[in-house]
Amino acid sequence: MNVAKRNIGLTFDGSHCNFRIWAPQAKQVQLSVNDKNTIDLTPKDYGYWEANHITNINETDLYWLKIDGKQLPDPASVSQPEGVHGPSQAVNLNEMPTPEHWQNIPLKDYIIYELHIGTFSEGGDFEGVAEKLDHIIELGITAVELMPVAAFAGKRNWGYDGVYPFAVQTSYGGPKALQQLVALCHSKGLAVILDVVYNHFGPEGNYLNEFGPYFTDKYKTPWGKAVNFDDRGSHGVREYIIENAIMWFRDFHIDALRLDAVHAIKDNSSSHILQEISKHTDLLSKQTGRSYYLIAECDLNDPRYISSVEQNGLGMHGQWIDEFHHALRVAAEEPKIGYYSDFDGIAHLGKSYQDAYVYTGMYSKERDNFFGKSAQGHHSSQFTVFSQNHDQVGNRMLGERSSTLYSFEMQKLLAAAVLTAPFVPLLFMGEEWAETNPFLYFIDHSDPDLVEAVRNGRREEFAASHLDGQAPDPKAEDTFKRSKLNWELLQQTKNATMLEFYKHLISLRKKYSMLQTVDLDTVKAYVFQPENSLIIERKCAEENKSILCLLNFSSNVQQLSV
Amino acid sequence: MNVAKRNIGLTFDGSHCNFRIWAPQAKQVQLSVNDKNTIDLTPKDYGYWEANHITNINETDLYWLKIDGKQLPDPASVSQPEGVHGPSQAVNLNEMPTPEHWQNIPLKDYIIYELHIGTFSEGGDFEGVAEKLDHIIELGITAVELMPVAAFAGKRNWGYDGVYPFAVQTSYGGPKALQQLVALCHSKGLAVILDVVYNHFGPEGNYLNEFGPYFTDKYKTPWGKAVNFDDRGSHGVREYIIENAIMWFRDFHIDALRLDAVHAIKDNSSSHILQEISKHTDLLSKQTGRSYYLIAECDLNDPRYISSVEQNGLGMHGQWIDEFHHALRVAAEEPKIGYYSDFDGIAHLGKSYQDAYVYTGMYSKERDNFFGKSAQGHHSSQFTVFSQNHDQVGNRMLGERSSTLYSFEMQKLLAAAVLTAPFVPLLFMGEEWAETNPFLYFIDHSDPDLVEAVRNGRREEFAASHLDGQAPDPKAEDTFKRSKLNWELLQQTKNATMLEFYKHLISLRKKYSMLQTVDLDTVKAYVFQPENSLIIERKCAEENKSILCLLNFSSNVQQLSV
Repeated sequence: MNVAKRNIGLTFDGSHCNFRIWAPQAKQVQLSVNDKNTIDLTPKDYGYWEANHITNINETDLYWLKIDGKQLPDPASVSQPEGVHGPSQAVNLNEMPTPEHWQNIPLKDYIIYELHIGTFSEGGDFEGVAEKLDHIIELGITAVELMPVAAFAGKRNWGYDGVYPFAVQTSYGGPKALQQLVALCHSKGLAVILDVVYNHFGPEGNYLNEFGPYFTDKYKTPWGKAVNFDDRGSHGVREYIIENAIMWFRDFHIDALRLDAVHAIKDNSSSHILQEISKHTDLLSKQTGRSYYLIAECDLNDPRYISSVEQNGLGMHGQWIDEFHHALRVAAEEPKIGYYSDFDGIAHLGKSYQDAYVYTGMYSKERDNFFGKSAQGHHSSQFTVFSQNHDQVGNRMLGERSSTLYSFEMQKLLAAAVLTAPFVPLLFMGEEWAETNPFLYFIDHSDPDLVEAVRNGRREEFAASHLDGQAPDPKAEDTFKRSKLNWELLQQTKNATMLEFYKHLISLRKKYSMLQTVDLDTVKAYVFQPENSLIIERKCAEENKSILCLLNFSSNVQQLSV
Repeated sequence: MNVAKRNIGLTFDGSHCNFRIWAPQAKQVQLSVNDKNTIDLTPKDYGYWEANHITNINETDLYWLKIDGKQLPDPASVSQPEGVHGPSQAVNLNEMPTPEHWQNIPLKDYIIYELHIGTFSEGGDFEGVAEKLDHIIELGITAVELMPVAAFAGKRNWGYDGVYPFAVQTSYGGPKALQQLVALCHSKGLAVILDVVYNHFGPEGNYLNEFGPYFTDKYKTPWGKAVNFDDRGSHGVREYIIENAIMWFRDFHIDALRLDAVHAIKDNSSSHILQEISKHTDLLSKQTGRSYYLIAECDLNDPRYISSVEQNGLGMHGQWIDEFHHALRVAAEEPKIGYYSDFDGIAHLGKSYQDAYVYTGMYSKERDNFFGKSAQGHHSSQFTVFSQNHDQVGNRMLGERSSTLYSFEMQKLLAAAVLTAPFVPLLFMGEEWAETNPFLYFIDHSDPDLVEAVRNGRREEFAASHLDGQAPDPKAEDTFKRSKLNWELLQQTKNATMLEFYKHLISLRKKYSMLQTVDLDTVKAYVFQPENSLIIERKCAEENKSILCLLNFSSNVQQLSV
């Protein structure tokens, strides 16, 4: 695969266009442009169809694919201006306006700010983010992480229901606006992480099955049939996904991908799709001279995911550590229900500071298994930690942020625990000023049965957890609107104070290299169970110095000795 | 896990017995001995139940387990004298009579003879094998491979329908007779390989679901629900399988396990079950000072399976190479249908000589995928090759061996291709004298619906391949009897000649180290497509010598130059 150019979908090349699509079961494939011109595609090897040197397609033109006469949007579409059921749109992605001098920030220096485009600003689009970039920069953030932007049904969604992995959601501003936002971030010294979903596709607007064997029943997933990465015909699916990862780096100048729930990607072939993404990313990196990072969300406590391909690893550069979050929240007296029930707070938090993973082979009651493996030998910059994120907030029935669950002082402690950790810290938008608006679950599917199914799913989920009250209606626009950040809060003393505290912590982290990422074995955690307190010692071998971080989760003054 | 002793099932320890079983859903577990004594088991951690220092169980006693009052055989039974639905039997495995001096043969020196206990001799049991051992030794074989012996329904089966992985089939002679056979092999200098099946359980007599979550619907397999190696509660299943592998080595002094179809073992946990088997085998090896090998049947062309656990591999020492067989058979003009359709004969055979795997990333039409990965860097002793085996013969509708498919001269060429290969050669019982009896598929289930389902399955399979004729009835005793070796044939000149040819080839292989296994990159194959011939050059760096093996698959004299 040539990573230097787009190999599928519609590509502009000077004055003409090329088109290539995988439709192995089709007998005839055509492009229908502006409901006027019909272009016949030529069958090629391995189920691909091509047309080259097309001259009668211009930017903003709308087009359909006709598969044996059936009109369908382009699976590799980069723009769906009329939504997931509408025509695709021709967009020239070649003129990305990024500053030439931009170089990615080393992963170990990432301080991440996760945001959801739709609820971050009043406008709910890329422009809304652009307007607030200075706030993020003043805070001290080095990398902004965008929740998924791949086109989904309707106007409101977290982004995990995307069905056009190459298309940028129109309600966010579409592909050109994303290119502009990335360029702006780079001009201001900010790296950009994009959340991508390769473990499933959304339930509405997914026409992939009409094109090829994108799904397999070899594996069961929470979302039904698994994406086909190793069953018959998976080569086309694999190329589609590799192409996608490469597109974000090459055409949008994204600096890192956050790969959603990679434990749900099932691939037992001799080359795991993550290895292939890693290898192709390295290839592009060599061509462009830029570095790109792959950061996986993975709940398997398996360091193979973050080991190099040469070592039979899956080649991810980093991963999220939910266990740090769970242990931290239990230390802060989060009720031990659901996934929190496996965590005992302070001792597990101490373990996570030292070992990243809490479960490294011990018995987990919640999983009814001996779980995980030690990650010793890995660098702490491979692990991303947080006290909140979109999932941990939004998967609560009422979407409560820490601000409405913990005291002001405890929120400060949570912030310090994350921002002095020997890992890559991640903040969830608004936590820096103790935003009180919830982050709720919302969708905007058009199919009423699907909407009802989502509503019922949420209801049953929370009923099973024996929670009182009622989940807000995910389809209601108000649920979305209530989830927007309230920037007005920054005028309040309390919120401004919290913001100053976050800024101070980040500047401390930047000032002292000992507060940054390290080899895991240089971190020592002292656990004081009765005092519900921790001392984290961060050694610096060369200078014969240590920094001690004292974390007192109790309400009392404590005397601790090490 | 302590590998020095049996941790599940019934164990003799001096004058008393211990019993331990995993039954995580049970509320009460009892042992019922000889329909007289009932012993209550005590619940322990992680779903286990135990009784120690039991004094009223003696060898040959029959016993049942009662799970909440329901009478069931012991899943870790070592003997089922009345069949898969009957009681389990107490057997003391501690007094294995192997010669003390026995040391396993280096894997690179294995010359394997695969045999099926039931059809190898008239008696169809371990004693029948013992009587014929001298034939095998005179042939030059160094390791005898027993098809699975785990207890299955009825008296006749290939062995892949086993439902008691710890129990030795009674119609073969049971566990003590197997111990005696292994000891006899060792006393004669023969290593013993045992075929074990960890990817599924047979369809009749499988009571495992009554004990715990042995199965999962996370994955689909050709045999229905997958064995649960990574879903909730899999820890008990994993211990069961690891215990089983270790038992064969420790209590039966088996030298190597052949692990059936490991590609069908699905495990996405951080420690693959094969890695665990490998690690525990190493542990036992350290304790006993003996070496043990793990040889996998695997059709993924993924060298990770045969890489060490330290290198994130799955820790198998070796694997079967079906592709060598397929390429070889097509070179010998096997019709290119079914899985043969992917092979072009001579060129692919040459590739296999050099690279072990034929498909190392190329497109496979049969699989509709780009398939496999290079195994370069591995030692050729990690690959087992053959021109026939139980599957390749028995999965033909009429179970024809090469003797009824190819000319006498072609059979000799096939033998030479295997026995001069830089891999571990494997013969299928009887091929050394060009046995003409078929090796058919046979079963002896008692459930009439199941028998009918098997019959229909076979019929449909062959109908799909558009084969003429009719598959013999798998349930008929005659189908089994017709599959027995005809030792009388050895009296015939033709068959005796073939035997002498095999003996000669094996003695050549033993005489010239250059004909044995090597680093893969010292083998060079010269392909002569129009001549349908191959020259295999085997270099010996130290001595500056080569051996050339000339393989002419055409019917003509050929002039070849290299």
